Amino acid sequence: MNSTIETILAHKSVRKFKDEKLSGEQIETLVKSAQAASTSSMIQAYTIIGVTDPDKKAELAAIAGNQSYVEKNGHFFVFCADLYRHEVIGEKEGAEVTDSLESTEKFMVALIDAALAAQNASVAAESMGLGICYIGGIRNDLNAVSEVLQVPDRVIPLFGLAVGVPAEDNEVKPRRPSAHVYHENTYRSDKETVRRELEEYDRTVSEYYQERTSGRRTDTWSAQMARMLEGKKRMYMKEFIEKKKYDLK
Amino acid sequence: MNSTIETILAHKSVRKFKDEKLSGEQIETLVKSAQAASTSSMIQAYTIIGVTDPDKKAELAAIAGNQSYVEKNGHFFVFCADLYRHEVIGEKEGAEVTDSLESTEKFMVALIDAALAAQNASVAAESMGLGICYIGGIRNDLNAVSEVLQVPDRVIPLFGLAVGVPAEDNEVKPRRPSAHVYHENTYRSDKETVRRELEEYDRTVSEYYQERTSGRRTDTWSAQMARMLEGKKRMYMKEFIEKKKYDLK
Repeated sequence: MNSTIETILAHKSVRKFKDEKLSGEQIETLVKSAQAASTSSMIQAYTIIGVTDPDKKAELAAIAGNQSYVEKNGHFFVFCADLYRHEVIGEKEGAEVTDSLESTEKFMVALIDAALAAQNASVAAESMGLGICYIGGIRNDLNAVSEVLQVPDRVIPLFGLAVGVPAEDNEVKPRRPSAHVYHENTYRSDKETVRRELEEYDRTVSEYYQERTSGRRTDTWSAQMARMLEGKKRMYMKEFIEKKKYDLK
Repeated sequence: MNSTIETILAHKSVRKFKDEKLSGEQIETLVKSAQAASTSSMIQAYTIIGVTDPDKKAELAAIAGNQSYVEKNGHFFVFCADLYRHEVIGEKEGAEVTDSLESTEKFMVALIDAALAAQNASVAAESMGLGICYIGGIRNDLNAVSEVLQVPDRVIPLFGLAVGVPAEDNEVKPRRPSAHVYHENTYRSDKETVRRELEEYDRTVSEYYQERTSGRRTDTWSAQMARMLEGKKRMYMKEFIEKKKYDLK
């Protein structure tokens, strides 16, 4: 196993950082790493916003549900799906691009592009000994985030990425068994298999929590997921996305 | 610069592979690397389908626009957004999860989750000396892909990933200047700046092609993007996504 794969397999989210800012050079390396990711037909449909202003960081932390590590970290990035400059390209080149920019296809392309870039930045950061945590919590209120960061239409802040020198050492959480995630040639959809797999992974997760809480927490993955999905979080999203002129056609 | 960042920055898509299959161990390393990526609240909303059946590979290559490297590679993966098993969890736990599964928020979560996983697999592959190419072309006809791979509702094949021993050595394509992609504290949206940046990058891209084609190709990025976006590709996508019970609420 090489050091890159060691880095990748050792990933765990870090939510407590030392009070040490990333250098300009480190930030540039992370941005350049992000940009080196594959991009659909070179569309490069994302923008990365670094947030250093303490007031803005405090506002984002509040939006994300008072997550202190949104404020306290080495650097805070927000990854945005971005087709704004492609709209400008349409004007500049006299090309009819609106239908395309507003298609579900391009919404997907922009999300995937931004996520590939972010994961490159994450792996790069971890290879430098830094810790990272994705902050999906900013999606609690993207109207507010859009105001804080002053993003125009055709730009959607997707998630934050907190980076910094770790001040805690977490354990790697057990993922679903690879054999459940990886199918060959066809999707294994028969419900009996799925239920059996769920029960197997539920036991793993439950044991993981029991060991780490001296038996106080006995949660299964299924129970966690059911609770989360019953929650109906962020049901304003469709309206927001369409207001930003994405996913309309 | 460490070797992981060197790997990341050296990325270029490979479209010609040697006739050498990945070993089972290599495939497992890539799947485990994919799974080690961050996942929103541990939702793990993706499935990876390895396609080894020659007939299925030929069908996928045809769908992707006769891309030979979809057939000829060391291994071919299809990354799918997947909330199917979360539906089974809802049944199993007696939880009302439908609104959540059909929300735009969860559509985004599943896409981002799958993309983060895929990029981990890509970086891991490249660190092993393998080449990769994302195949967005499978989205030309996801109805057909769904039949080939027999995916149920709540599963969306997003892109392929061809992996293998490179039989060609491409150059790294120039990305947008980092200073254009990276903004600080607020999004720089004034159109004069955007246009000036576009012109700068247009020159870079144009020079890149001119040098490599002895002046025959003089394309700018803006012209490429305008042409692509005028194309209105994959406008069936919204209907397909909704048919698969995503992005409805």
